Amino acid sequence: MAETKRPTSETAEAILGEYYPVLDHGFISLMDYMGTDPTVPTCARTSYGHGTKATSNDKGLVRYLRGHRHTSPFEFVEFHFHCSMPIFVARQWVRHRTASINEVSGRYSILPMLFHTPEAEHFAKQSQSNKQGRSGGLDGSLHEMAAINWSKQRALIQENYEWLIAEDVARELARIDLPLSTYTQWRWKIDGHNLMHFLGLRCDPHAQWEIRVFANIIAGILERGWPNLFEAWADYNFKSRTFSRQEMQVLSKLLIRSGAGLSPSRTELTTENMVEIGLSKREVDEFLAAFDSSKYDKAHFELPETKAFEYFMQDAQAAVPKIDVNHG
Amino acid sequence: MAETKRPTSETAEAILGEYYPVLDHGFISLMDYMGTDPTVPTCARTSYGHGTKATSNDKGLVRYLRGHRHTSPFEFVEFHFHCSMPIFVARQWVRHRTASINEVSGRYSILPMLFHTPEAEHFAKQSQSNKQGRSGGLDGSLHEMAAINWSKQRALIQENYEWLIAEDVARELARIDLPLSTYTQWRWKIDGHNLMHFLGLRCDPHAQWEIRVFANIIAGILERGWPNLFEAWADYNFKSRTFSRQEMQVLSKLLIRSGAGLSPSRTELTTENMVEIGLSKREVDEFLAAFDSSKYDKAHFELPETKAFEYFMQDAQAAVPKIDVNHG
Amino acid sequence: MAETKRPTSETAEAILGEYYPVLDHGFISLMDYMGTDPTVPTCARTSYGHGTKATSNDKGLVRYLRGHRHTSPFEFVEFHFHCSMPIFVARQWVRHRTASINEVSGRYSILPMLFHTPEAEHFAKQSQSNKQGRSGGLDGSLHEMAAINWSKQRALIQENYEWLIAEDVARELARIDLPLSTYTQWRWKIDGHNLMHFLGLRCDPHAQWEIRVFANIIAGILERGWPNLFEAWADYNFKSRTFSRQEMQVLSKLLIRSGAGLSPSRTELTTENMVEIGLSKREVDEFLAAFDSSKYDKAHFELPETKAFEYFMQDAQAAVPKIDVNHG
Amino acid sequence: MAETKRPTSETAEAILGEYYPVLDHGFISLMDYMGTDPTVPTCARTSYGHGTKATSNDKGLVRYLRGHRHTSPFEFVEFHFHCSMPIFVARQWVRHRTASINEVSGRYSILPMLFHTPEAEHFAKQSQSNKQGRSGGLDGSLHEMAAINWSKQRALIQENYEWLIAEDVARELARIDLPLSTYTQWRWKIDGHNLMHFLGLRCDPHAQWEIRVFANIIAGILERGWPNLFEAWADYNFKSRTFSRQEMQVLSKLLIRSGAGLSPSRTELTTENMVEIGLSKREVDEFLAAFDSSKYDKAHFELPETKAFEYFMQDAQAAVPKIDVNHG
Repeated sequence: MAETKRPTSETAEAILGEYYPVLDHGFISLMDYMGTDPTVPTCARTSYGHGTKATSNDKGLVRYLRGHRHTSPFEFVEFHFHCSMPIFVARQWVRHRTASINEVSGRYSILPMLFHTPEAEHFAKQSQSNKQGRSGGLDGSLHEMAAINWSKQRALIQENYEWLIAEDVARELARIDLPLSTYTQWRWKIDGHNLMHFLGLRCDPHAQWEIRVFANIIAGILERGWPNLFEAWADYNFKSRTFSRQEMQVLSKLLIRSGAGLSPSRTELTTENMVEIGLSKREVDEFLAAFDSSKYDKAHFELPETKAFEYFMQDAQAAVPKIDVNHG
Repeated sequence: MAETKRPTSETAEAILGEYYPVLDHGFISLMDYMGTDPTVPTCARTSYGHGTKATSNDKGLVRYLRGHRHTSPFEFVEFHFHCSMPIFVARQWVRHRTASINEVSGRYSILPMLFHTPEAEHFAKQSQSNKQGRSGGLDGSLHEMAAINWSKQRALIQENYEWLIAEDVARELARIDLPLSTYTQWRWKIDGHNLMHFLGLRCDPHAQWEIRVFANIIAGILERGWPNLFEAWADYNFKSRTFSRQEMQVLSKLLIRSGAGLSPSRTELTTENMVEIGLSKREVDEFLAAFDSSKYDKAHFELPETKAFEYFMQDAQAAVPKIDVNHG
Repeated sequence: MAETKRPTSETAEAILGEYYPVLDHGFISLMDYMGTDPTVPTCARTSYGHGTKATSNDKGLVRYLRGHRHTSPFEFVEFHFHCSMPIFVARQWVRHRTASINEVSGRYSILPMLFHTPEAEHFAKQSQSNKQGRSGGLDGSLHEMAAINWSKQRALIQENYEWLIAEDVARELARIDLPLSTYTQWRWKIDGHNLMHFLGLRCDPHAQWEIRVFANIIAGILERGWPNLFEAWADYNFKSRTFSRQEMQVLSKLLIRSGAGLSPSRTELTTENMVEIGLSKREVDEFLAAFDSSKYDKAHFELPETKAFEYFMQDAQAAVPKIDVNHG
Repeated sequence: MAETKRPTSETAEAILGEYYPVLDHGFISLMDYMGTDPTVPTCARTSYGHGTKATSNDKGLVRYLRGHRHTSPFEFVEFHFHCSMPIFVARQWVRHRTASINEVSGRYSILPMLFHTPEAEHFAKQSQSNKQGRSGGLDGSLHEMAAINWSKQRALIQENYEWLIAEDVARELARIDLPLSTYTQWRWKIDGHNLMHFLGLRCDPHAQWEIRVFANIIAGILERGWPNLFEAWADYNFKSRTFSRQEMQVLSKLLIRSGAGLSPSRTELTTENMVEIGLSKREVDEFLAAFDSSKYDKAHFELPETKAFEYFMQDAQAAVPKIDVNHG
């Protein structure tokens, strides 16, 4: 522990350096941070100088900023994470460009033979509606069979990797047949605004489940360490709903402004009416699905029990090939 | 005219190199572009390879992408503009960081003495509701007086600038008292996704009127040269409306999904009800104002008559101080 | 062919849409571009307005800009490529964040079973000096054995992938054991400045050979379509050499300015002298290696014969699993 | 003071919240930071996993990374500053796009009437060699006259600004004739890599003197709080020298590698010889000027005495127009 004059969050400190397990060998840990809940309104108030009245409280101002797309104050909060995830997850994650990454290098290092094995409950069919997703259960015996196949081919891949390393073949070549399920790890740094954008896309049900579980942990960390930022994100981004011009035409037919409030009109609108207004069939389905109050409960992300850093170190260490390299 | 194998838009070509006047001395001209309406769906389809059915037509796919925040295909269209605007407008414009700029340098060059003079109809009071904006007319005589004052102080500033230049004082020093109303000019390059983000913020009524007129011209250029992109932006961004979690709770109370359509409930909700649900008073006002169908007409941006590049060249040339520099 | 008023490069047009083969199944093709050699000086001259003398010719100005780190004019040139490469190459490539990517999705698509097999001549040992690279030949029989192993394990991986797809398992799960040697493809867009930065890092001998061959093709495309930009990059970046403060102290001891030229001093400096000045042993080696005039020949990148797009289409098509999916 | 588990730098803490005066009314203060000297090597070592030997010490590794353009570990250090500077300085500063800014808004606020007045010793002629700079003294009486003129025209500008504010004209309009010498202020956040890039360009003698004094303060803050990062930047960037391909040809003729060291050749090279090799006349001058050992002393940046935040608050407060706004 050190003393600092910097803004400090007790709940963030409580989480700092804790390792949250994700999937079978992955983890997320907050390693460092800059800025706390009050940092965002403080920076925003830089814009309001002399001759203005500062009326809003901190929390209200954060909500206002988020609701009105004033994003720059959120950039003054920074997060530095240590993460480990399968490469197919890392390949989606890396597409968020406004972040910094230092990843373990398969050119320098001998990689631990850690692979992700999906569990039966997350083993599902190709979705027919969501063309990039999954839905619907599969026969349990199919998962058993798949698990046996993964196991077999990974044993073979590992054997060949170890043989090439032992023969002193360049590591950058030895690793080319490692599967996308192999775990990698990296340091990841991102600011508050871009973190919220990441969470908006990756906590979404359209994201692949295996990256969503990572995003959910990060959301849970935000919720505990930066509760005002989390709430503003959850209410104005994550659980918000954007309606297109045509959808707003539909809504404007259904709801009438009446003095101090809003009254439903007498109108009912059918799918056909909405298609006439300009919605596609797919859009009508998505539009109707939006009016389900159960979707708009307060957001909350559970966090699992943490494990010690040493636990993951040993997990990796035990999986590193023990090889006498033949430099001959 | 040259021959090219590149995707080419006839309506963009018709606009290319045309100079649109903005304010008293400003302009916007499309100098170059890459990509046309079909570029976006073509790039998006790179993601859908074998084993997928390509059902949607180009226009439908562009709308789908915009509605579902798949933004990367829009980055494959590029725009290169030549623009001239007052420095106080440039200072807002430059904050859009994902763009490229080459601006005329007051360190190298002698600057033309062109200043922006607001017209009477845009000369307004500080808004009480929108703390950063204006609203409400002012006595015409006030504008007359202001115009006289602008004129006087600019004459003095110009005299001093010319004197310093004539004495061979470094231009980077001679220019420090030029007013923010002085016109500058730059080349500006931006991709389709970031252009749409720029337009979303700068065509908005909350933007200062003097930058909005520039954004409106750019929107008009997009509308003519890239009609599918424009329509998708207008329908899913510019004329869309995002409702917060709490606002969606309100809507879910007012509208009931009924089989093939949506029915208004019997409920009416007053301001008080909405505040109970969690909206602030300001949010209730903004929420109610959203249900005004006149806001959701098809977007359209008028373009003014163009002028020749030479017109603006001469305008600037005539305003450049004619000075014999005393290098002695 | 269409007519355009846009700046057009004949040599770029000649290359546009041509597919250059790279490695065993990869390719690079220039799909679109914005800006030509004169675009860079034209944009740069925007900075020099009235009261300046435009003395330098286009080529000289481009060289000056590159030599003096004036990078923004290079951002006004844009390149749009279609590329296919092994995933382990794509993972290095994607780290260049100031570029746009649309990649084929293994969540939507059934992927072609195309894998990269290193050739014997590029199959090498882990380098002892360059800890991330390779150097030194390997026994030819080792490569034969490796090729057999790659072949075997890929057959097994392919069998399992096809089985999972046939069972209608979600594609995002079926693909998790595909090896890093699997080919992927993407659209890639980048501006001139960032392209040059990419080439500087990826044409470098420290880059993995398998990404270097891609970068070399792109450099060859630049050389033909944008010869002035290429030459400036080659002379001021690629074949330049930066010396640290301590190395400059060494050089200042060895070379004496003499009126109209530079004369060697009488001094000789040994490794020990240089270490005293502050260079590490490794730095002395790298410093000495810099004075080899053969390294500073004019840069030139050969391009291979092009193939038709259809060739690569058929290569991929033939490798896509032919499967009757069991939706049952 | 709070307790934190975060990496903490005692020398950075000593500076935190201190206000360094710059020019007549400007300041720079470090408000927050993330990461310390050891953060960079720690993040870099993430890339070297199992099977590698960690030989280098922290300082050596930071130097190695900087010398070999491994920039991503430097992105894990973040700096948050509070700054005030004249608008013509802010306009140069804002062009560094990979940073975050929250600036005081002339639309919301009444601005303090603080203007920058150049001192006699920095009042100079337009440079003939460096077309964007200044050089050579001016007659002292010219500065006296200039000071009188600045004073007069600013009094007029202030009078008109106050009159418009008093008449309740929108602030976004009232401010349009404020001069570029008016002070603005902002919060500025940037990571270590981009800070070093900023310092490389803005501590350079080619930068306008008025921004250089700000950059020098920031360099001095880096020197004290992050000494290893500072030294690596100073030795491998700020005081380094890059030679073009042609310049390296010259050097390779003048210096011969001899076993364990480097020997001057017998050759002398004149300007004509260098022009034959391909250097322009301007380049020969710049090349010859590089061999001056006095340029390669250890870098050091003095910091002025700090002042209290309240000092600057009062300075600004006293300069805010005291106006009864006529809302009538």
